[in-house]
Amino acid sequence: MTDDADQQGSAEDLLIARYFRPLARDPGAFALTDDAAVLSPPAGCDLVLKADAIIGGVHFLPDDPPEAIAKKALRVNLSDLAAKGAWPLGFLLSLALAKEVGDDWLASFARGLKDDAEHYACPLFGGDTVRTPGPVMVSIAAFGAVPHGAMIRRSGARPGDLVVVTGTIGDAVLGLRLRRDPDEAARLGLDPSKRDHLIARYRLPQPRNAVAAVMRRYASAAMDVSDGLAGDFAKLCRTSQVDGVIEAARMPLSHAAQAALAAEPALLAHLLSGGDDYEIVATVSADHIDALIAEARAVGVRVTEIGRIEAGAGRAQFLDAEGRTLVFARQSFSHFD
Amino acid sequence: MTDDADQQGSAEDLLIARYFRPLARDPGAFALTDDAAVLSPPAGCDLVLKADAIIGGVHFLPDDPPEAIAKKALRVNLSDLAAKGAWPLGFLLSLALAKEVGDDWLASFARGLKDDAEHYACPLFGGDTVRTPGPVMVSIAAFGAVPHGAMIRRSGARPGDLVVVTGTIGDAVLGLRLRRDPDEAARLGLDPSKRDHLIARYRLPQPRNAVAAVMRRYASAAMDVSDGLAGDFAKLCRTSQVDGVIEAARMPLSHAAQAALAAEPALLAHLLSGGDDYEIVATVSADHIDALIAEARAVGVRVTEIGRIEAGAGRAQFLDAEGRTLVFARQSFSHFD
Repeated sequence: MTDDADQQGSAEDLLIARYFRPLARDPGAFALTDDAAVLSPPAGCDLVLKADAIIGGVHFLPDDPPEAIAKKALRVNLSDLAAKGAWPLGFLLSLALAKEVGDDWLASFARGLKDDAEHYACPLFGGDTVRTPGPVMVSIAAFGAVPHGAMIRRSGARPGDLVVVTGTIGDAVLGLRLRRDPDEAARLGLDPSKRDHLIARYRLPQPRNAVAAVMRRYASAAMDVSDGLAGDFAKLCRTSQVDGVIEAARMPLSHAAQAALAAEPALLAHLLSGGDDYEIVATVSADHIDALIAEARAVGVRVTEIGRIEAGAGRAQFLDAEGRTLVFARQSFSHFD
Repeated sequence: MTDDADQQGSAEDLLIARYFRPLARDPGAFALTDDAAVLSPPAGCDLVLKADAIIGGVHFLPDDPPEAIAKKALRVNLSDLAAKGAWPLGFLLSLALAKEVGDDWLASFARGLKDDAEHYACPLFGGDTVRTPGPVMVSIAAFGAVPHGAMIRRSGARPGDLVVVTGTIGDAVLGLRLRRDPDEAARLGLDPSKRDHLIARYRLPQPRNAVAAVMRRYASAAMDVSDGLAGDFAKLCRTSQVDGVIEAARMPLSHAAQAALAAEPALLAHLLSGGDDYEIVATVSADHIDALIAEARAVGVRVTEIGRIEAGAGRAQFLDAEGRTLVFARQSFSHFD
């Protein structure tokens, strides 16, 4: 054993110390010098647990900026915590690095992750870093907290509830189309600012953590919209064992998505089933909907009423402006269809 | 949206329901029908958090049995919990599946994982399953519990403490050599039962969770031995800011490893630096060592005294039978050397 190695540890230790130690500010992370971290959950709270991985070529494109990849990996998990009414406590990171990934990439990745860990008050608690012969994979397990028993479930929707959604739907799937096909913007008549808006919505989710406490106060059921509103809302209806009806004409769309839809009305089904929205779909009693919308607005999040819950066996329907049922070729994004 | 899809969900949902729902027995996992899980930590306890990933071609061989891959993925995390004195509460799984992975592989993987989740009382709380163009990757985040403030740190070793290790060291690195080179067993004069023992030790770690409570009671510092005893013990000495001396002649070796070492004495450095042992190295005051060894034996785990801690700046030394310092070409396994 050389003195050098004895003092410094392995290259893996050095990499962790250089890039990831600055993110591990919680005392329970022991500055990443121990094998595991310790977390004392807030008194009277449950922990909310979520793990989600993103992979190069599947969830992000290899030439996406490393900062954006890091942020997306954390934000897809933060979005689930928000939809469950939880506030973030921290996360674990498993990072598999492709051979071609060098110091510049890693420095940029760590910088993006640090920005978000600070912005969302969600520090790094630990994890591991390995080399892979395959594409980059970023696997994050995030922990949040809710008051005991207060996690918002998928299963709480009741007949008579109204359906709401945060933000706008369909931007990310349009953004991915624009990224993949440079001619698509011209075909849809989108100017550069609309095009850039949609691409940014694909690259960088805006999880609705600001509205988590409002959702916890009023929502009877909620989930994050990550695999397409059509399929995700169908899951909520199945789990709650209720029927749900959404009016597509009430769907909140960005100006850019409105312009694209005006140019190509057939895109509607894509917007509703495309995925990567990272908004929250929730149900709320008619008594509480005004308070939910007002309190969400007060924290900067637009919430739109889009439908209703009825008694039934778990069927979700989307109606067009004439009241006809929309039929989707594919309800939602799935890795195994 | 078809009635069929409405009733059953996506292929991804079906895969999760078929293979992984049976592992999610804790009520807080909601039978994997929600976006996140909820965990109420035991009163008065801290959570201990650990994430570790294993990758095909790096941490396991592509033709390893899927049951063994699943068990290894969970056990490398359980080993860390054990070394920290924690008992398991559950885990999250991120599974990236290569295109060639079919139903048989997945059924076998899930069966192995279920066996271990039950054996170690460590149920599945959630996670995600995605396709990858690369090799299979199994990323697990495991949660354990310790009484508040009782996690065993790396940093607690004090001058005068003795050094102990569980089980036997060096089997797994020999097992990997035997797996990679079919002629190695004959060269080392190992009969089939010795060869099989070493290969099994590589394929399937035996985490020392049985001894976690004993370690918590007596150990001043501990960590799991996963990257080679030489490097891992050096980390413990650095973090504790003490010097450590280990006598290689006292190292606990299996009969199979003893036979290999008799045939090729130069293997000693490999045994001490090879990795994949998943034993626990710990320090303990002289007052407590007899109790630690006796109580560990009572729960079926052999613990051997192998060295001592001295005042110093964080230097670890390994001495051979003549008291000379052993020099390692490479202290431990690292992905980035």
